[in-house]
Amino acid sequence: MATSATHTMTKSELKDLYSFALDLGRKAGKILMDGVDMRCGDSAGRVESKQEEKMNAVDIVTQTDLDVEAFVKAEIMKKYPSHAFIGEETYSSGSSKEYLITSAPTWCVDPLDGTVNYTHLFPMFCVSIAFILNGEATVGVIYQPILDVTYSALSGHGAWQDDGHAWKKRRALPLINNPAPSLSAQAPKGCLFSCEWGKDRRDVEGGNMWKKVNSFVNMAAEIGGRGGKGGMVHGVRCLGSATLDLAYVASGAFDIWWEGGCWEWDVAAGFCILKEAGGLITTANPPPDPMKDPIQEVRLGSRLYLAIRPAGDSEKETGRQAQERVIREVWRRVEGLDYTRPGA
Amino acid sequence: MATSATHTMTKSELKDLYSFALDLGRKAGKILMDGVDMRCGDSAGRVESKQEEKMNAVDIVTQTDLDVEAFVKAEIMKKYPSHAFIGEETYSSGSSKEYLITSAPTWCVDPLDGTVNYTHLFPMFCVSIAFILNGEATVGVIYQPILDVTYSALSGHGAWQDDGHAWKKRRALPLINNPAPSLSAQAPKGCLFSCEWGKDRRDVEGGNMWKKVNSFVNMAAEIGGRGGKGGMVHGVRCLGSATLDLAYVASGAFDIWWEGGCWEWDVAAGFCILKEAGGLITTANPPPDPMKDPIQEVRLGSRLYLAIRPAGDSEKETGRQAQERVIREVWRRVEGLDYTRPGA
Repeated sequence: MATSATHTMTKSELKDLYSFALDLGRKAGKILMDGVDMRCGDSAGRVESKQEEKMNAVDIVTQTDLDVEAFVKAEIMKKYPSHAFIGEETYSSGSSKEYLITSAPTWCVDPLDGTVNYTHLFPMFCVSIAFILNGEATVGVIYQPILDVTYSALSGHGAWQDDGHAWKKRRALPLINNPAPSLSAQAPKGCLFSCEWGKDRRDVEGGNMWKKVNSFVNMAAEIGGRGGKGGMVHGVRCLGSATLDLAYVASGAFDIWWEGGCWEWDVAAGFCILKEAGGLITTANPPPDPMKDPIQEVRLGSRLYLAIRPAGDSEKETGRQAQERVIREVWRRVEGLDYTRPGA
Repeated sequence: MATSATHTMTKSELKDLYSFALDLGRKAGKILMDGVDMRCGDSAGRVESKQEEKMNAVDIVTQTDLDVEAFVKAEIMKKYPSHAFIGEETYSSGSSKEYLITSAPTWCVDPLDGTVNYTHLFPMFCVSIAFILNGEATVGVIYQPILDVTYSALSGHGAWQDDGHAWKKRRALPLINNPAPSLSAQAPKGCLFSCEWGKDRRDVEGGNMWKKVNSFVNMAAEIGGRGGKGGMVHGVRCLGSATLDLAYVASGAFDIWWEGGCWEWDVAAGFCILKEAGGLITTANPPPDPMKDPIQEVRLGSRLYLAIRPAGDSEKETGRQAQERVIREVWRRVEGLDYTRPGA
């Protein structure tokens, strides 16, 4: 399946695939909600299923995660038998985490992003489905089942909240888009900064936890603090889902997202939605000269990300110029993180 | 109005007041959503109102905030003309922030909690309405309009998600309640820890920002790290809304919430909901002996809070014993914050 040849699909085929992915996201979300109901019971607190008696919360979450991935994979393979499939669950259980995305038509799926949130029933979990063509995330669908909200995009067709939903208002992304607000000249001051603590909690100088903490404090501290690095962001937000962080950057809710350690399935759908909405994404790790080195589009699979929300032009600069300015202002405040790929 | 006499209301009067508050929360939320629509425009991004041309985002947010408070106050004064009213907007514009809640029947309202989130259109904002009788938060209503989710409680009547909603499933809080899960013997390991960076960003040793950061790192670091204080929480969450933090502790989504600097209107509704759901709330600041000093119920207005989710009994301890154990495990990892009341 994996070849370096260019694969083509017609506009009509892609639109059909996009509708299929939207529908699939909602169906997969329904399975996640069945898992919620199995644990919550009905309005009187009665658990409806006998299964609960035999399974604890972790069992239910693990089983639901596997069930959703198996369902999504089967549906995709039925409709697109020639396409490649990378799912978080099947991939994780393999021995290698080598870069796997080729130019072949590939589905990249996280059946449950925000597993910790799902276990705790904090609503910030989702299904994430991406379709990648010639190495580019071409379709992205993120569905939050407990909130019944969809973020989605098809390259060239725009990014949307609740596209195709039966009764909810379809909104273009970013949500404020006529035009999108410009980015403040004082940024990161006034920005909402989204980040995650992650799983690497080693208490060692130079470890990822301390690199993150030092970076968070630089972004948050008063202007003039931290030896001139204080960024005085408007707020710091941690949701525990890289996928939803990206969706909220695409919607314009978050101005800046900075994170390391993600895998392809964490970000592929969000990538497509963010780019289609007009956001910019590059590497989390500052280059040698953060203020002058070129800003490069990051490769899906780099594990290190810095995303800036869609921005309108101002009198002084284009939206793109403003995004680049903010990237440099973040780079000069953050430390490089250590997340590599096996074999990289 | 403010007297030290005991005020009584019948069960039926309180049930009527609770229904009124639920309805009022949803109506107030509708005004907040009008403010969202005014900024987002329709599905094609067209802004429907001429008002947008004259007002920037901050103007709209400020005006909406004031409009919602005026609406809520007018509705309450119409139905309950003898009751006292404390609203975030009217209160903030006064010169004093003295402790104002007496034994009189008092409504304590934050028309828009999570203002920064609302400005950015991040969905974690809400209307918060509490009714306080004899100094006790007796009714609490938290409504998230963009998600159309209500958290509410009436003392003695239980805590609920989407109570009184026309078409959504009503769920008891905590969401898993038959019984509520116990708290892990290794807590805070395995817990979701909710906290906020707040507005005090002074980069000085002993300032609130550094007290918070040191505490966050203790909670997050690996077991054995930080000189034995490493708590290895499952995840750190920052939403930017004290009110919703409390709602998520009541629902069981967050195990621990630790924060300083809140005012009464930030927490009054959440207080009622959390207590009715079976959560425990005490002061954020550790006493001289965190492991042995008594755990006291915190006064509404203390500005310093530590909340633990509802917990079921295990074979080894009652839910209450487990909550107290977790409070002590948090206390021994956090630093005392400096938030006092004017005149205190």
